[in-house]
Amino acid sequence: MTYRIGVIGGGQLARMMVPPAVHLGIEISVLAETEGSSARLAATQVGDYHDAETVLGFAKDVHAVTFDHEHVPQDVLRALVDAGVEVHPSPEALFVAQDKIVMRERLTALGLPVPAWAAVRGRDDLAAFLAEHGGRAVVKTPRGGYDGKGVRVVRSADDADDWFASLDAAGASDALLVEELVEFRRELAQLVARRPSGEIAAWPLVETVQRDGVCAEVTAPAPDADDALADEARRIATVVAEEVGVTGVLAVELFETADGRLLVNELAMRPHNTGHWSIDGAVTGQFEQHLRAVLDLPLGDTTPHRAWSVMVNVLGGPAQGTMADRLPALMADQPGAKVHDYGKEPRPGRKVGHVTTTGPDLEDARGRARAAVRFFED
Amino acid sequence: MTYRIGVIGGGQLARMMVPPAVHLGIEISVLAETEGSSARLAATQVGDYHDAETVLGFAKDVHAVTFDHEHVPQDVLRALVDAGVEVHPSPEALFVAQDKIVMRERLTALGLPVPAWAAVRGRDDLAAFLAEHGGRAVVKTPRGGYDGKGVRVVRSADDADDWFASLDAAGASDALLVEELVEFRRELAQLVARRPSGEIAAWPLVETVQRDGVCAEVTAPAPDADDALADEARRIATVVAEEVGVTGVLAVELFETADGRLLVNELAMRPHNTGHWSIDGAVTGQFEQHLRAVLDLPLGDTTPHRAWSVMVNVLGGPAQGTMADRLPALMADQPGAKVHDYGKEPRPGRKVGHVTTTGPDLEDARGRARAAVRFFED
Repeated sequence: MTYRIGVIGGGQLARMMVPPAVHLGIEISVLAETEGSSARLAATQVGDYHDAETVLGFAKDVHAVTFDHEHVPQDVLRALVDAGVEVHPSPEALFVAQDKIVMRERLTALGLPVPAWAAVRGRDDLAAFLAEHGGRAVVKTPRGGYDGKGVRVVRSADDADDWFASLDAAGASDALLVEELVEFRRELAQLVARRPSGEIAAWPLVETVQRDGVCAEVTAPAPDADDALADEARRIATVVAEEVGVTGVLAVELFETADGRLLVNELAMRPHNTGHWSIDGAVTGQFEQHLRAVLDLPLGDTTPHRAWSVMVNVLGGPAQGTMADRLPALMADQPGAKVHDYGKEPRPGRKVGHVTTTGPDLEDARGRARAAVRFFED
Repeated sequence: MTYRIGVIGGGQLARMMVPPAVHLGIEISVLAETEGSSARLAATQVGDYHDAETVLGFAKDVHAVTFDHEHVPQDVLRALVDAGVEVHPSPEALFVAQDKIVMRERLTALGLPVPAWAAVRGRDDLAAFLAEHGGRAVVKTPRGGYDGKGVRVVRSADDADDWFASLDAAGASDALLVEELVEFRRELAQLVARRPSGEIAAWPLVETVQRDGVCAEVTAPAPDADDALADEARRIATVVAEEVGVTGVLAVELFETADGRLLVNELAMRPHNTGHWSIDGAVTGQFEQHLRAVLDLPLGDTTPHRAWSVMVNVLGGPAQGTMADRLPALMADQPGAKVHDYGKEPRPGRKVGHVTTTGPDLEDARGRARAAVRFFED
């Protein structure tokens, strides 16, 4: 028997599943949206993941289907399950990740700490929420947002008129999500992986720095995080994984408030940017762990190699030329930098790669990672 | 610009170049001998590497050609160079690796320590060598041997008659190589990588255990190796790399004699079994370093992650079924084991995979690696 995994979506997350698949002897295939996708080496098919027939054909000979993203429609996911395909995470779990209002409802029902929130259907609802929360709030479209898209800070009930109008235009019953603007000390993320049979493994709690709503830098483990904070983060992620029935990697993005509480910001049910450090920084990286989890194989040791790992994203990439053009200078300057080039065209703000460094000293590792990434900027 | 590397040969060494190529954004293609090769994911072509037209066609659009093995004929290598292709290692360097008598001549000319040796053309030559060296010796066919094949311990001038006969039959002017049987304390290996522009990087000296002429286990770094020994090993490898003009990874297999001297046993000009530990055990593994070296990119940091790394080969593999069948039990028992399955059919004695463990305690790491590999044996 040979394990076979099918990945829907050809982005960098699918791409980064390829190396551990090669090492573990897992045959991996990717259903990509376009030719020349980031995961092109393993892309056996180009097709539309909204089309059930396409997806069923792709999934015919694999032991498990998993995902590069959370956007596969529920009817396609259900068709896979009905056809007897192992789908991880399951449609039921993904349902919670696909809609931010469903997610807040579920987290609230589980008694987990979240920012104050409401589903708002128009200006009056939004005005009422603003009045209760100091006149400022965050409005989010429930579906399709990522990397800061579909997220807006509002200070007046007028500030979301265009989004309310598109809800009306779409004839959808959907609402917008509004949340209190949390005064956080910093952002953290807790990643865990869970197998269908129940085993859970956690990586250390990490600190993340966002820029314009996009993950820019991750430090593992989170500096100055005491055991109580780390335990609480792991408890929250474990409750989500178990109660929502997540399989594969689950990322829980968290706010640490000024008074030391944790609030859940977002969930992602797939390998996540805040776990990229683990490829080079831990015995078992998140992409290997995801493959193990979706095949219901026992999970790997998540111990970090060194005291500190720092991951810095390459956002946009070079204004001229490619990342490859910059490798000679970067590598000469930073021999310990682990460079990841997603094979995507540079474009302002786009995640086109990342760099990880590890070492015994945090400031040194951070300085080296930042210095390396500067070679990709103009 | 995107870097493109073409690898001739579809074995596990080509396979293990794929993960770092994916991470570094290098497009990798493989000219495989057969369909379903170990490196099948990156195999863009199946063809005969003895055929210059085939190889020239394969190499048309790459920045550098490198190798899974050292068997590409000199005329094919020269045709590539004549066509303007970057070939690493070069034909001149590979010439030294392709013939064990040429290798001994070169090492001797460089003043490097080697076992006593001679090129023998018949029984009389062999009898004379035996008489001078205590009646025992090792006879090797100069070409095509690997993993203990083409190597024989002889105690009488008759013991190589069949090999002398095949030399005659082939009408070749070739001789056999005969060497003194070295009473060694242990076997060691020194791996370095060298760029065309001259930079060299070394991994720590490692200890290797061979079984029936095949590498069975590697410990990095070599236990109880003092600085003088490590320095001498690095000096020998550096002299070979520079004087022979090796590019890419060079492995120097060494004997440590009872009185603490080092003698060169064999050279390999490619990633080598004794460097597999570095994939999981060092900041820059040998496959990434090889890609960097053959593209003349600056070399990476070779620092180990932990105090000890132990690599154990999977020789033969399961008598029934596949390596994949054993993963559930292995992974449950050894969550820190890094499993590498080469995607090859199990067959007695065949290298079908390896396992690496790392950690602060040598006995613990070794015990875990051995325990993991036992799951693949029957």
